[in-house]
Amino acid sequence: MRVLHHYMLSAASRFVRLYLNEQKMDFLPKLEEFWKSEAAFLKLNVAGTVPVLVEDDGTVLCGAYVIAEYFDDMLPEQPLLQGRPAERAEIRRLFDWLCGRFDREVLQPLINERLIRRMTGEGVPSSVVIRTALSNLGVHLAYFNHLVEHRQWLAGSKMSIADLIAAASLSVLDFMNDINWDDWDELKLWYARIKSRPSFRPLLADQVTGMTPPGHYTNLDF
Amino acid sequence: MRVLHHYMLSAASRFVRLYLNEQKMDFLPKLEEFWKSEAAFLKLNVAGTVPVLVEDDGTVLCGAYVIAEYFDDMLPEQPLLQGRPAERAEIRRLFDWLCGRFDREVLQPLINERLIRRMTGEGVPSSVVIRTALSNLGVHLAYFNHLVEHRQWLAGSKMSIADLIAAASLSVLDFMNDINWDDWDELKLWYARIKSRPSFRPLLADQVTGMTPPGHYTNLDF
Repeated sequence: MRVLHHYMLSAASRFVRLYLNEQKMDFLPKLEEFWKSEAAFLKLNVAGTVPVLVEDDGTVLCGAYVIAEYFDDMLPEQPLLQGRPAERAEIRRLFDWLCGRFDREVLQPLINERLIRRMTGEGVPSSVVIRTALSNLGVHLAYFNHLVEHRQWLAGSKMSIADLIAAASLSVLDFMNDINWDDWDELKLWYARIKSRPSFRPLLADQVTGMTPPGHYTNLDF
Repeated sequence: MRVLHHYMLSAASRFVRLYLNEQKMDFLPKLEEFWKSEAAFLKLNVAGTVPVLVEDDGTVLCGAYVIAEYFDDMLPEQPLLQGRPAERAEIRRLFDWLCGRFDREVLQPLINERLIRRMTGEGVPSSVVIRTALSNLGVHLAYFNHLVEHRQWLAGSKMSIADLIAAASLSVLDFMNDINWDDWDELKLWYARIKSRPSFRPLLADQVTGMTPPGHYTNLDF
């Protein structure tokens, strides 16, 4: 069976779990404490990052972008990257936004300061970095809220990989209790819709040593 | 005619110029001082980043990933993203590496400190940030050198978008005289091969206010 090397609070890993669940594709999840840079893992992905998906035929796929496009090549009528080229471009623009800009400006600094520093014993978290990331978060949430106010799904009229990576990313922040959902009405409705999908259920059961998600994290009616 | 909003020292912009030149697709380059965040440009790309390509039918394509995949959708037998799904995955892995990790760890800090700070009047460059980025550069160059020692092109036996984004990225660093080519024999040969292609010529004529590239920058026999 295909093996997914992932980490619970990696948004890109959560995206791949959602993606495979949505596609009803079986996989064996393997927890990877990627910051340890273990030799066996670096051999799979020299970048040392998760997610990494190893297919039955041995094909190694590194990263959310590579994995999503690989299945777009493999599966005819890819339901999560559907549409004319211009519609697919809009899906990819937002997917790229979440994997790139949002990750860099919000998720990475928060995870680094709060988690990786603790795991690697690299000193105390920087409150300046955390404050900046949370301030960036507000700007991004306003944009996503604006998008789903005018569209059924993030990139248009159909659910796509853009929604999955966005939900994966916001779920990591929700786990850390960083989102005040009452500030973002439309986004809350959109998130509730994705959160209640069967594909999402395993993410709500995630446990991270030393971190307790808020009560509303698992609640479908939050 | 399609219009490419670009900036000379943006590696992703250079990638698109190389890509369109390789494909013999005409375009009108429009220089964009993206850090000014002008309203007309933000209307095209709310992220405020280059490259942005506007097609004849008005389709707006933001970013190297979206542009490359758009043409992969539009053009049959895409020559720069060729192969079986696993081969395309390897091309995309390296493309993603350059657009993401390499950009974040090397290019962005250097461009921000040396150029954007000056343009926006945001104080003096940080020598610590510059030193860290240059140290990161060495690690990446060793990896790329290793790849082209064992392969004809970066991702395999055919030239691909991975080579174009890598050459675009290294050309920005070469413009700033950050690469000592004599340290990287195989990479130098690979770069010389790409540099001598007609598609590369316009990049060698680029001029940036307040920056003079080293003599070898335009020299095909460097």
